[in-house]
Amino acid sequence: MNGVTDMNSSQLIIHNAMIVTMDNELRVFLNGGIVIDNDRIIAVGQSSDIIRQFSSNSQETIDLHGQFLLPGLINTHVHTSQQLARGIADDVDLLTWLHHRIWPYESNMTEEDSYISTLLCGIELIHSGVTCFAEAGGQHVSGMAKAVELLGLRACLTESIMDSGDGLPSSWGIRTADECIQSQKELHKKHHDTADGRIRIWLGIRQIMNSTDDLLLQTRDTAKQLNTGIHMHVAEIPSENHVVMQTREVDHGTVTYLEKIKFLRSNLLAAHSVWVNEKEIGFLSSCGVKVSHCPAAAMRMLGFAPIREMLDANICVSLGTDGAPSNNRMSIVDEMYIASLINKGREVYATGTTNPTILPAETLLNMATLNGAKALLWENDIGSLQVGKKADMIVINPSSWSMVPIHDCISNLVYCLRTENIVSVMCNGHWIMKNQKIMNVDEAEIISMAKNAAAQLLKRAGIQIPKRMNFV
Amino acid sequence: MNGVTDMNSSQLIIHNAMIVTMDNELRVFLNGGIVIDNDRIIAVGQSSDIIRQFSSNSQETIDLHGQFLLPGLINTHVHTSQQLARGIADDVDLLTWLHHRIWPYESNMTEEDSYISTLLCGIELIHSGVTCFAEAGGQHVSGMAKAVELLGLRACLTESIMDSGDGLPSSWGIRTADECIQSQKELHKKHHDTADGRIRIWLGIRQIMNSTDDLLLQTRDTAKQLNTGIHMHVAEIPSENHVVMQTREVDHGTVTYLEKIKFLRSNLLAAHSVWVNEKEIGFLSSCGVKVSHCPAAAMRMLGFAPIREMLDANICVSLGTDGAPSNNRMSIVDEMYIASLINKGREVYATGTTNPTILPAETLLNMATLNGAKALLWENDIGSLQVGKKADMIVINPSSWSMVPIHDCISNLVYCLRTENIVSVMCNGHWIMKNQKIMNVDEAEIISMAKNAAAQLLKRAGIQIPKRMNFV
Repeated sequence: MNGVTDMNSSQLIIHNAMIVTMDNELRVFLNGGIVIDNDRIIAVGQSSDIIRQFSSNSQETIDLHGQFLLPGLINTHVHTSQQLARGIADDVDLLTWLHHRIWPYESNMTEEDSYISTLLCGIELIHSGVTCFAEAGGQHVSGMAKAVELLGLRACLTESIMDSGDGLPSSWGIRTADECIQSQKELHKKHHDTADGRIRIWLGIRQIMNSTDDLLLQTRDTAKQLNTGIHMHVAEIPSENHVVMQTREVDHGTVTYLEKIKFLRSNLLAAHSVWVNEKEIGFLSSCGVKVSHCPAAAMRMLGFAPIREMLDANICVSLGTDGAPSNNRMSIVDEMYIASLINKGREVYATGTTNPTILPAETLLNMATLNGAKALLWENDIGSLQVGKKADMIVINPSSWSMVPIHDCISNLVYCLRTENIVSVMCNGHWIMKNQKIMNVDEAEIISMAKNAAAQLLKRAGIQIPKRMNFV
Repeated sequence: MNGVTDMNSSQLIIHNAMIVTMDNELRVFLNGGIVIDNDRIIAVGQSSDIIRQFSSNSQETIDLHGQFLLPGLINTHVHTSQQLARGIADDVDLLTWLHHRIWPYESNMTEEDSYISTLLCGIELIHSGVTCFAEAGGQHVSGMAKAVELLGLRACLTESIMDSGDGLPSSWGIRTADECIQSQKELHKKHHDTADGRIRIWLGIRQIMNSTDDLLLQTRDTAKQLNTGIHMHVAEIPSENHVVMQTREVDHGTVTYLEKIKFLRSNLLAAHSVWVNEKEIGFLSSCGVKVSHCPAAAMRMLGFAPIREMLDANICVSLGTDGAPSNNRMSIVDEMYIASLINKGREVYATGTTNPTILPAETLLNMATLNGAKALLWENDIGSLQVGKKADMIVINPSSWSMVPIHDCISNLVYCLRTENIVSVMCNGHWIMKNQKIMNVDEAEIISMAKNAAAQLLKRAGIQIPKRMNFV
């Protein structure tokens, strides 16, 4: 790294890297350079051209010899407030998971818990190369926003919204649809477009079985009014569809009903969308709905989402980790790998025959970058390394035992990459991780705070986890 | 780490660790100690008892405060000779994979290539917590053995054995069954029980479609005579079963035929075993055949192995990574996580309903340790931390962003653990990785050698890999 002396400029040059741009032409510069002015990319090209044109005016020049530069990865479905609950509900059935572990946990959280949980989750996201994420709907948006601002990440934050439903903890006063909307309008006013524009506030719907029609329709209209997105869990399990068929008089399930009430719009991010039929894939496609595919969580709890069919129908499919109690690892790096494996394997279920050519590496990389940006309605600013976009990017060291040899660099990036290989992460023009050191918080201190907060929260919530072995 | 002065002893005490023993009682010492004398464990117990009883006689005492100690993980199906081929056959159909990528690669390998490939693979295995592996059958066993001896690993090595088959490269002179057996007898004589007993030589069968009955029966009888195991790919794809039904006159597939010719014995390690029916699961069970489940490779190329049914039938199921061109990551840590996800998800395929309780964490940990040892016919010496067994063990640091908080330590070990968390690895009483540094070879030098050897080998084999993006 060479400091250059012209202090009138805030330009940073990064050069001598293999740059995977994910631009419209899918250009990869074998020896590329990029220029960042404050928070934006102002040039991308061959290293030699970049150096010739910009070095006299740059404040700092970084030589990334032998390393790869990629757009920051985007996690489109993560419960940051659930990070302290990692391991509280492994290997249990869905009812135990929800009623005896997750609801008691969530209903006993304080704003401070949400803050600490989001800090811990954010650290894992950054180590995993994520610069931007969509919160799936959690407690205490103010706590999340404080953590996101501090860490330097970019996020669409969403409150966990329910106005009905059986079995909810009595301590959770059920809010009316009006109260839900009012709360979110206030959060939007307070936090939207804060943290140098890194935080956006979205509307949330936890899931259809916890939503009245009034809430659904007010959410749709409020999102239009505020010009923001809606994040909702959609068609997660067969019983969800069955309940919708019985109570809401449609012939299939959630997606069919949402289409009927004209809820499906291009600002809807439908998480999971596992149990959808061909007709419903058509609805999602024609309405421009975005899908967040969370392969690990789906395999563990839900089932096989028809991702190949969705991509064939031109649906924008992105990748999410879901929350720590649904997955354990919060790594989009792992999700790319798992999405490849699971969707290749799913062909046996779908067609009777394996097909290793399904979802090739370049498709997965697109899902984790540009499609993520589209899903978050943020593609004008992020998702690729192009002039005019925000400087959200990651540096990867491929010269390690986990990735060598590199005969096919794009497939190695998707199938071999591990979090160990992610060296540095920049969001909005600032390094938020440098040489694997988180820049804006003390990692050890957060880990210690998280251990304490998590233990106290479980005690308060009365959650007890059976022992699996003979502890002596 | 405290050096203690009594030089008459070679005892090492490791204490103040959470020790997951995987012994018959599944004991976990919350604050445990272990004593190693040369290559063997001579005591396991509470730290205070161990210190009181052994500290006066020990040469070295290591305090593992806050860390976990586990048996070394065992990878029961890995192609060490294929490590240099990582990324040469991603997202292609099976015929392209085999005929245009893997066979040209393997048939152009030198003994030096096998040596370098095994060194690179071994480094990845060690970083992934593996102390012992079973080679699935590769080129140049002498090259592999040299690498295993140098790295300090433990292994069952197997030659790639075929005496028939369509489409094999012409440069590969097909050997007769007699020649195959003779070659393996010589390898056994030369390498079996070498490297302080860390290397064992097994017999190999690549797969049934490359084997005459003469080869199968001679292999069975030679294995009995040499008192060793047989490693074979079994029932990988539906067409394998179809060919067996057509050519060998049985009503289902490979397993049915192997039972008919009395090939199924307790010394057979059947890799994959994906396409087996209920009757065949019964044959595997009653004959004591061991299965190596390779979930990532199976999802990518083969299909869903009926692992729950095999475990229900008391079959010893262990875990393997398969080779780098079938999986990309050579990590048993990841395979535990993926085995959990895939087999939970498979229930939708098998029964129509998800079941997140299938294959709980303790079962997966058993598959990666004790069942691995049983599969390799080595359970008297390895697979658990017990008095009298060899000192094969790994040290894990759980206090990081990837594993915190730890509400359920066994499930965190299986579902959250990443290679980053594996700090040190001991095999046969010697540290082969210490504080993430590989002890017996220079990692950077091997990586550099591997890059060169891999590039030259692909050139020699005429393998060309299409570009996925627009490289400029």
